[in-house]
Amino acid sequence: MKTVVMLAALGLLGVGSARAELVNKVVTYEQDGVVLEGYLAWDDAVEGLRPGVLVVHQWMGLSDNERMRADMLAALGYVAFAADIYGQGIRPANVAEASEQAGKYYGDLPLYRARLQAGLDELKKQPGVDPDRLAAIGYCFGGKGVLELARSGADVAGVVSFHGNLDTGMPASPGDIKCKILVCHGAIDPYVKPEAVAAFLKEMDAAQVDFQLIMYSGAVHGFTQKSSGNDPSKGAAYNEAADLRSWIAMNDFFAEIF
Amino acid sequence: MKTVVMLAALGLLGVGSARAELVNKVVTYEQDGVVLEGYLAWDDAVEGLRPGVLVVHQWMGLSDNERMRADMLAALGYVAFAADIYGQGIRPANVAEASEQAGKYYGDLPLYRARLQAGLDELKKQPGVDPDRLAAIGYCFGGKGVLELARSGADVAGVVSFHGNLDTGMPASPGDIKCKILVCHGAIDPYVKPEAVAAFLKEMDAAQVDFQLIMYSGAVHGFTQKSSGNDPSKGAAYNEAADLRSWIAMNDFFAEIF
Repeated sequence: MKTVVMLAALGLLGVGSARAELVNKVVTYEQDGVVLEGYLAWDDAVEGLRPGVLVVHQWMGLSDNERMRADMLAALGYVAFAADIYGQGIRPANVAEASEQAGKYYGDLPLYRARLQAGLDELKKQPGVDPDRLAAIGYCFGGKGVLELARSGADVAGVVSFHGNLDTGMPASPGDIKCKILVCHGAIDPYVKPEAVAAFLKEMDAAQVDFQLIMYSGAVHGFTQKSSGNDPSKGAAYNEAADLRSWIAMNDFFAEIF
Repeated sequence: MKTVVMLAALGLLGVGSARAELVNKVVTYEQDGVVLEGYLAWDDAVEGLRPGVLVVHQWMGLSDNERMRADMLAALGYVAFAADIYGQGIRPANVAEASEQAGKYYGDLPLYRARLQAGLDELKKQPGVDPDRLAAIGYCFGGKGVLELARSGADVAGVVSFHGNLDTGMPASPGDIKCKILVCHGAIDPYVKPEAVAAFLKEMDAAQVDFQLIMYSGAVHGFTQKSSGNDPSKGAAYNEAADLRSWIAMNDFFAEIF
C-alpha cells in the first residue's frame, strides 16, 4: 500500500496512466508591459475541461523545481502553469540576487499581487482549463505569493503554501479571501517562526477564512526541495517525509475543492 | 470526485464493499482485577491478518461515538477495538461525573497508561489482527490517552489524537516514543490553548518524535462529535469540514504506517 500511495503522491501513476501524453511548453505573457516567461504542462490524453493549477516559484525564480511540480500536476490530470514573477531572463544566480529580487516584491505587495494575477489570467486562457476550477500552489517566496493572491480576493477555489512566508503588510479582513487555504509548514522553520505562525492564525481567524495549517516535525525551510540540501542546521533542507506528506495533503485538498 | 472522497472518508465504501460483512461484539477484559467492557468491530469478509486500531473514548466513557468510529474502521478493513478506560458499568451521566472520572486518570497517568495498554493487549489477541500493525486513535480525553500510550513507548506504529489534550505530567524524552504521531486540532479550541500546542511542539521536537499537527479553522473542542452541538461559543461543537478532513488525514496516516 505504501508504494502505491507514494507513487500516487509523486504523480507517477498518472490519471489515465497507460494513455498519458505528458507535454509542456514555454509560454510568454505580459503584466503592465513587462514580459514574463512561464512553463505550461498538461496531459494531452485527458479530454474535456479540467482544473488549472498555478505554481509560484521560490526566491531563485522559475526553476527545475517548479517545472517538476507542474509536470507532476499534469500527470495527475491538471493543467499546470508555473508562473514567472520576476520577468523573462531574470533568474537570480545567487542568494544576494535572489534576496534583491524577492525583496522588490515583498516591498511592493500590489505589484506582487498583479504579477500573480497575470499568471492566473494566463492559466485561465489555456486550452482545457476549466475557469471555474482554479487553484494556486507556491513555495517559500511563492508560498507567500499564493497567500497574497488569496488575500487579494482572487477567483480561485484554493491555494496551498509550502514553507511559505506567512506574514503580510496587507492583512485580510472578513470577506477579502474567497478561497480555501492549506498551509504546509516545517515545525522548526527558523525563517517562519512560531510568532509568525501565531500572527497568521490570528489574521485568518479574524478574517473568517476556511484554512488548514499542517506542521511537519523536523522540517525546516525549503523542505520540499532537494536543492535545499540535507543539513537542517542551515535553516533550509529537504525532508522527504514532509515532502511526501504535504503533497498528499495537497491532493486531498484538491479532491475537496475541485 | 467530492462524493467518492467523502464516502471513502466516512468509511462507507468499505474495502471489499460488495462483500463486506460488518460484525461487532462486546468484549470484556481486565486490568489489575478491574473488569472493562469494550466493543470490537471487524469485516468478516476480509481474509488474513489486517491492522488493528484501538479507539479511545472521550470523557463521557465508551459511547455511540466510539462504536461508530470502530464500525467505520471495520468498513475500511481494520479490526477496531473501542476500549473501556473507566470500567464496566462506569458511564458518566453528566459533565460532573465525566469530570470526576477523567480527573482520576489525568491525575494518575501510570494508571491511565496501564488501562490503555490493557486495551491494546486485548486488541492484539483478537482473531485477524496483525500484531505488527497496530495503531490507536482517541478523542478529547482519549486523544490525550493515545498520546500517553505513545509516551509510554507502546508498541504501535502510530497514534492519532482528535481534539485531544496535549499537556502531560510525564513528558517524553528522546527514545521514549517509538511510533509516529498525528494530532488533529481545532485552531480555536478554548480548552487546548495555543500555549498547550506550543508546549507540545516543544516536547515532541526535543524528544525527536515523528509527528504532524494539523489545525482546522473555526474548529473548537469536540469537533468530530455531533453530540457536541452546533454552537462553537460553548467551547465544544461539531464541525463537519474538520471532521471529514481529519478522518481523511487519519486514512493517509494509516496508509503510510501500515
